Amino acid sequence: MGVATRLSEPLDSAPIDAFATDAPEGGKEDALSTLACLVAADMEACNRTIVARMDSEVELIPRLAAHIVAAGGKRLRPLLTLASARLCGYAGDRHVSLAACVEFIHTATLLHDDVVDESVLRRGLTSANAVFGNKASVLVGDFLFARAFQLMVADGSLQVLGILSHAAATIAEGEVLQLATQNDLSTTEARYLDVIRGKTAALFAAACEVGGVVAVRPRAEQQALFDYGMNLGIAFQLVDDLLDYSADQATLGKTVGDDFREGKVTLPVLLAYQAGGAAARAFWKRTIEASEQTDDDLAHALALIADSGAIQETLERAANFAAKAQSALGIFPPSVIRTTLHRVADYTLSRVR
Amino acid sequence: MGVATRLSEPLDSAPIDAFATDAPEGGKEDALSTLACLVAADMEACNRTIVARMDSEVELIPRLAAHIVAAGGKRLRPLLTLASARLCGYAGDRHVSLAACVEFIHTATLLHDDVVDESVLRRGLTSANAVFGNKASVLVGDFLFARAFQLMVADGSLQVLGILSHAAATIAEGEVLQLATQNDLSTTEARYLDVIRGKTAALFAAACEVGGVVAVRPRAEQQALFDYGMNLGIAFQLVDDLLDYSADQATLGKTVGDDFREGKVTLPVLLAYQAGGAAARAFWKRTIEASEQTDDDLAHALALIADSGAIQETLERAANFAAKAQSALGIFPPSVIRTTLHRVADYTLSRVR
Repeated sequence: MGVATRLSEPLDSAPIDAFATDAPEGGKEDALSTLACLVAADMEACNRTIVARMDSEVELIPRLAAHIVAAGGKRLRPLLTLASARLCGYAGDRHVSLAACVEFIHTATLLHDDVVDESVLRRGLTSANAVFGNKASVLVGDFLFARAFQLMVADGSLQVLGILSHAAATIAEGEVLQLATQNDLSTTEARYLDVIRGKTAALFAAACEVGGVVAVRPRAEQQALFDYGMNLGIAFQLVDDLLDYSADQATLGKTVGDDFREGKVTLPVLLAYQAGGAAARAFWKRTIEASEQTDDDLAHALALIADSGAIQETLERAANFAAKAQSALGIFPPSVIRTTLHRVADYTLSRVR
Repeated sequence: MGVATRLSEPLDSAPIDAFATDAPEGGKEDALSTLACLVAADMEACNRTIVARMDSEVELIPRLAAHIVAAGGKRLRPLLTLASARLCGYAGDRHVSLAACVEFIHTATLLHDDVVDESVLRRGLTSANAVFGNKASVLVGDFLFARAFQLMVADGSLQVLGILSHAAATIAEGEVLQLATQNDLSTTEARYLDVIRGKTAALFAAACEVGGVVAVRPRAEQQALFDYGMNLGIAFQLVDDLLDYSADQATLGKTVGDDFREGKVTLPVLLAYQAGGAAARAFWKRTIEASEQTDDDLAHALALIADSGAIQETLERAANFAAKAQSALGIFPPSVIRTTLHRVADYTLSRVR
């Protein structure tokens, strides 16, 4: 297909001038939109697959699924599958249904995470479990998960099935590990990284790797895509955890302080706790470990984190992972889409104001 | 392998005399134990796979999984996979890991069902979510589900992956439909049957069909195994729903009256409601539809159901499905294992005292 060929062409001959040179710093925020534009037709097809395949004779299923799937979100993960395939010069359409699989798996984990986290806001809307109840959220999540595997079976690649079933197991492990580290300030940074590698980065990595698999690229390129996704996912989650203590609610689209109220031990908290004096440590122990919180505590937590330098430190860690993600792209020849994926890593960091 | 050959040999030459003739009525209760004996070595191997594959570096996972998996239960579903493969004369060992997949999928649905149903007892032990919490139950269920697919990928059959991913989607649909019919006495018997076909019989059917697939039997035999499992599963669930209004708690291994308290619209309730006079209907509307229950209501519900003939009617429906299951076995030549599968259908009914 013409589009695919164009996207993976050497940068020099890229027909879209806007991407032929480095955009100024301010342009970073648009990297995701640019990526979405570059694979817009693929994403439209993917959205059609999503809507068609989340259907069921059991009417509550599409209704609940629509609440979270159709709400849209950034569609970041399927975007990565579509873009990775195009980066590899793939000209077929298998990546479309596999991108839908990736989104279904992601949506299933969101639905189950909603049950888990009792969060009130998700993607700016009221969460599915607040509207439909815990039961329905768990079961529709199970349905979407099963549907994802049906789609993969229809695609017919055991390698893809292996990649995404492994990712699904790793996500669950990461989520359980997060549960085990909850309210525990003795959690190490390494263990925290294990949590976010599992709960977030594993699916980013798999989403990218699948793009290289459908394009039947050499193992080294598939591994490079996996590495890009893994490091991008870690950077993304680090920033997400950071935003929970710094963004305003409108920007974040979820409730600021959710992590704090749930006693999640994220890097900003770990760093602020470790850097803190006796009073700060006592505060964190009371609020995070003992889960004893008053209405004023969130404001104090935000202040402690701001003063401790934890925001900057977390951002630096994220920048290191984003750089690793960018470095993994080096195996591919320069192209519009490679440049854009490179910028997506910068964009991940730019969400911090 | 010798065992497999023996089990699928014509009945006349069956070396185990005890199964060569029809056992007296009282012997029916042992059909499941007999089946377990016939595939004992396979089941031991299956149990080893289950224990090995539910392991994870995240320590909470094997601990929680052990609570429900190692608690044992009847292992009815993997037993069906093992027995179906042997019925087909299969002499390999693929059925062992696939039987473990079937049990993992079943266990995942139990864990998610525990979250959903808030039941206090499961398999006679305190339920996993009562001990470990809802969060962990959902996530470990997800892990086992993903593990099941990893095992299937390792087995390498897209046909098996298709059968079990379809079953998983159907189970979720059945569970959601059950949710939609909850507290609704206008539910038809047909819709109730859709619920139990999905939530229970679909996995019985898939478990059996997989046995025919690994044995590479003609499609008609695979379909016959599917039909056996489907009808057996429906009979099994009908009896299960009946026992919730008639068994004593020790026999059932779960809390009698769970369905009643949750407002589940099962066939005994539907039949008693439809056969009831104005007072009975008002009672069911208050307790099931409006969920207004007092301590004395369960006893009254049990009495209404006993007096309405609903127990006998439900049992007759179950007997019809059990007969269909037995009839599906007709395509296979007589053998010890065929006779035992035949008796398992009778056993399903014999659980009613």
